[in-house]
Amino acid sequence: MFTPKNDTPPPRTIGLLTDFGLADPYVGQMKAVLAKKTPHCPVVDISHGVTPYNVAQAAFFLAASHTHFAKDAIIVAVVDPGVGTKRKIVALQVDDQILIAPDNGLLSLVNNPDHAIRAFDLSAAMTGPKNISPTFHGRDVFAPLGAWFAMGGQPSELGEEISPEDLITLPWSQPDIQPGHATAHVLHIDRFGNCVVNLLPGSLGETPSVRLPSLSSDHLACVVTYGELCTGEAGLLDGSQGFMEIAVNQHSAADKFGLALGDQIELNWEA
Amino acid sequence: MFTPKNDTPPPRTIGLLTDFGLADPYVGQMKAVLAKKTPHCPVVDISHGVTPYNVAQAAFFLAASHTHFAKDAIIVAVVDPGVGTKRKIVALQVDDQILIAPDNGLLSLVNNPDHAIRAFDLSAAMTGPKNISPTFHGRDVFAPLGAWFAMGGQPSELGEEISPEDLITLPWSQPDIQPGHATAHVLHIDRFGNCVVNLLPGSLGETPSVRLPSLSSDHLACVVTYGELCTGEAGLLDGSQGFMEIAVNQHSAADKFGLALGDQIELNWEA
Amino acid sequence: MFTPKNDTPPPRTIGLLTDFGLADPYVGQMKAVLAKKTPHCPVVDISHGVTPYNVAQAAFFLAASHTHFAKDAIIVAVVDPGVGTKRKIVALQVDDQILIAPDNGLLSLVNNPDHAIRAFDLSAAMTGPKNISPTFHGRDVFAPLGAWFAMGGQPSELGEEISPEDLITLPWSQPDIQPGHATAHVLHIDRFGNCVVNLLPGSLGETPSVRLPSLSSDHLACVVTYGELCTGEAGLLDGSQGFMEIAVNQHSAADKFGLALGDQIELNWEA
Repeated sequence: MFTPKNDTPPPRTIGLLTDFGLADPYVGQMKAVLAKKTPHCPVVDISHGVTPYNVAQAAFFLAASHTHFAKDAIIVAVVDPGVGTKRKIVALQVDDQILIAPDNGLLSLVNNPDHAIRAFDLSAAMTGPKNISPTFHGRDVFAPLGAWFAMGGQPSELGEEISPEDLITLPWSQPDIQPGHATAHVLHIDRFGNCVVNLLPGSLGETPSVRLPSLSSDHLACVVTYGELCTGEAGLLDGSQGFMEIAVNQHSAADKFGLALGDQIELNWEA
Repeated sequence: MFTPKNDTPPPRTIGLLTDFGLADPYVGQMKAVLAKKTPHCPVVDISHGVTPYNVAQAAFFLAASHTHFAKDAIIVAVVDPGVGTKRKIVALQVDDQILIAPDNGLLSLVNNPDHAIRAFDLSAAMTGPKNISPTFHGRDVFAPLGAWFAMGGQPSELGEEISPEDLITLPWSQPDIQPGHATAHVLHIDRFGNCVVNLLPGSLGETPSVRLPSLSSDHLACVVTYGELCTGEAGLLDGSQGFMEIAVNQHSAADKFGLALGDQIELNWEA
Repeated sequence: MFTPKNDTPPPRTIGLLTDFGLADPYVGQMKAVLAKKTPHCPVVDISHGVTPYNVAQAAFFLAASHTHFAKDAIIVAVVDPGVGTKRKIVALQVDDQILIAPDNGLLSLVNNPDHAIRAFDLSAAMTGPKNISPTFHGRDVFAPLGAWFAMGGQPSELGEEISPEDLITLPWSQPDIQPGHATAHVLHIDRFGNCVVNLLPGSLGETPSVRLPSLSSDHLACVVTYGELCTGEAGLLDGSQGFMEIAVNQHSAADKFGLALGDQIELNWEA
C-alpha cells in the first residue's frame, strides 16, 4: 500500500459521505482510523444518511457540498455496492480539493467549469501488505487514503492520471430541457419534504411559474424563499444546494405531490 | 457583512442546535464553513433532531445544554421557519457565552439569574456583499457569525444592544403553579419515553407524590432516580436537564400516558 | 471526586458509545463537557444508536471497534439501565487503551489474548463534592472520567485493581460449537440487514457452506465478499467486525430469514 507521510502538515479538513447510517459502528471505525493518522485534521460529516446503495443521491450531496469546504479539503465518499469486486477507486482533483470515491457515478454531478479538474485511478490502494477487509473498504482503504492525502500525498504518486470523461456517469445526470418543457429527476427529498431536482438554477429561463402536468393542475410560483408562499402553498425555488427544488411552505412537497427519490417529473411553462 | 478576524485566538467551543436532521447535507455544510474559518475550534452538536419548526423544543434543548459548555462557548441555534423573511437574528450574551438564534422564542427558556445577560440585534449580518442563500441562513449567515464570534468578535461590533425583555417569547414558557395544583406543558419526549415538562425542580414543594388526574388514577412517586421505581412503574423526577420529568423505569412514559410533544398536563398533590 | 490534571499532554482520541440516540441533547452535553476539559482531543462516536438498554449489542460494538482506535485511546461506553443504583463503574486497560463502562457485561466481548488486560473498579468516581445527576452519569461521571484519563490519569490512581474475571458477563457471550453444528446468537443487525452472530471467523472450520435448518432449506455459501453472491442470494461471511455475519447481496438478510436482535440460531454443516 501507499507509504505514510510522517511529517505533520497544517490541518486540512476531511469530509465524509456514506450510506452507512449512524446506528452501526462503521462510520465510527472510519473516524477512529482518521483520528489515529491525522488527529489534527477536522473531520466533517456531509451525511451518512444516503439511502443505501443510492449513488445518484450521494452524487448530489457531494456536488452540493464540496464547494462549501476549504479549498484544500479532502472528501471521502463511500456508497459502494460493488465493494470487493473489480470496480475502480478514483479521485477527482478540483483545484486543490481531492474527492475520493468508487468509480460508480458518485463523482458525476461535480461540475465546476471554472476549476481545473483532473482524475486519477487509485485502485492500487487496494493492494498491499495491510489487512483489508473485503467488505469494508471504507475503513480499510478509503479512510487511510483520505488521511494520506490530508498529510500531503498527491494522487499522481499513487495512480495513473485518467480522463475525467472516462469516469462512470449516472444514467440520468442531465435533464432534458426544451422551450416550455423539461423532463427532470428527483435527486433528493429532504427532511422537510423539499424535492431537489436535477435542474440548475436559471436553466428554465425567467418564467414566473411552472406546472407539473402529471401531478397537479396548479401553477407553482417561482419564488426566492419559502416565506413568499402561503403556508401549505407549493412553489419552485432555486434552492440552496445548487439545484432547483419543489417546496411547500412548512409542509412536505413530497407528500403533496406523491414524489419519491429518483422519480421522473415533467415541467411545463410559458416559454 | 462583518469583517473577519485574522489572528488565531485560543480555541472556543462552537455548539450547534438545529432541526435539520442528519440525513440531509445541511449540517455538514455548516460544519464545512466552520472548519474553513475556525479549524482549531471544537464543534459540538447539541442536537439536530429537533422536531421540524418546533421552537419550544429547541428552546428547551438550548436552556438545558448551554450550562454544560465552557464559559466562553459560542452556541448557534437554528430552528427558523421564518428564514428569508424580516425576522431578526439576535444574540444573547450570558457572561462570556454567546447564544445566536433567530428571534422567535428560541432563547426564551434561558434563565440564569446569577449571570449577566445582554441581548443584541445581529440582523445586520444578513446584509452585505456575500452570497447568502435566502433559504439557508444556517450555512450562509449563522455559521459565519458563530465563527466570527469564536475568533473574538463582539456582539456590540455588529449590532445594537437591545433589552432581553424585547426578545420574542414562547406562548407557554411559564407553567401555572398553585398550592396543590399545576398546569404545565410537555417540552420534550426523549428516546426512552421520558417526558420533560416545563416545571423547575423544587417548584412543587416537597410532596412525596403527584397525580395526573386526566391521565391516570395512579399516584406517581417523586423519586431521585429511575432505579427507585419497579420496572414499568411511573414516577416524577427532577431529571438531569434542569426541568422535571415524568418517567417509567425501563419503559416509555409517553406511551404509558399517551403524551405527545406540546401537550398540556395537570398535576395535583397534597399541598 | 478525582483531581483534574492541569498540564496539557498530547492529544488522545476519546471514543464514545451509548444508547442515547442523537435526537436528544444527551450526547451533546457529554461532548460539551469533553470540549471544556480536553478541547485538544479528537472525539469519535462509535455509535449512539445502540438499542436502548441492549448491553449485548453495545458489547459487540465495543469489541468490534476498539481495535481500530489508536493504541492509547480512551473509550467511554454508557449503556446503563442501572444508572443511579449500586452497580460498579469499571475500566478495562488493554495495553494503553482504557475502556470505561458500567459493570453490566458491556466489556465482556473484548477478547485480546495477545494484549495485557487489567481491570479496575472506578466506582469512587461517583462520590465527591461535584453535582452529579443521579440519572445522567454519562455526562456527570463518565465524560469527566474520560477527560481525566485523556489528560494522563491512571486507573490505579482512582480505584482498586480487580480481576478481569470478576467483571459481569453476558448470559450468552460464548456460542456452542460442535463438529457440524453450532448454536449462536444474533449480536447485531446492521443498516443493510446483515446479521452479525457471535461466531469468530474460522470457528466453524473450512466448510464451503452452512444451513440454517430452522429458517430455510437453502445452503448458504461461505464467501469472502458480498459481490460473490448473486443479488438477493444469502451467504455466510467472516465480515469486517471480528464476528461472522449472515448477509444477502444488496438485500436484508434479517428480512429474508425473519431474524431479530438477540435471536438464537442453529447452524449445520458437513463436518
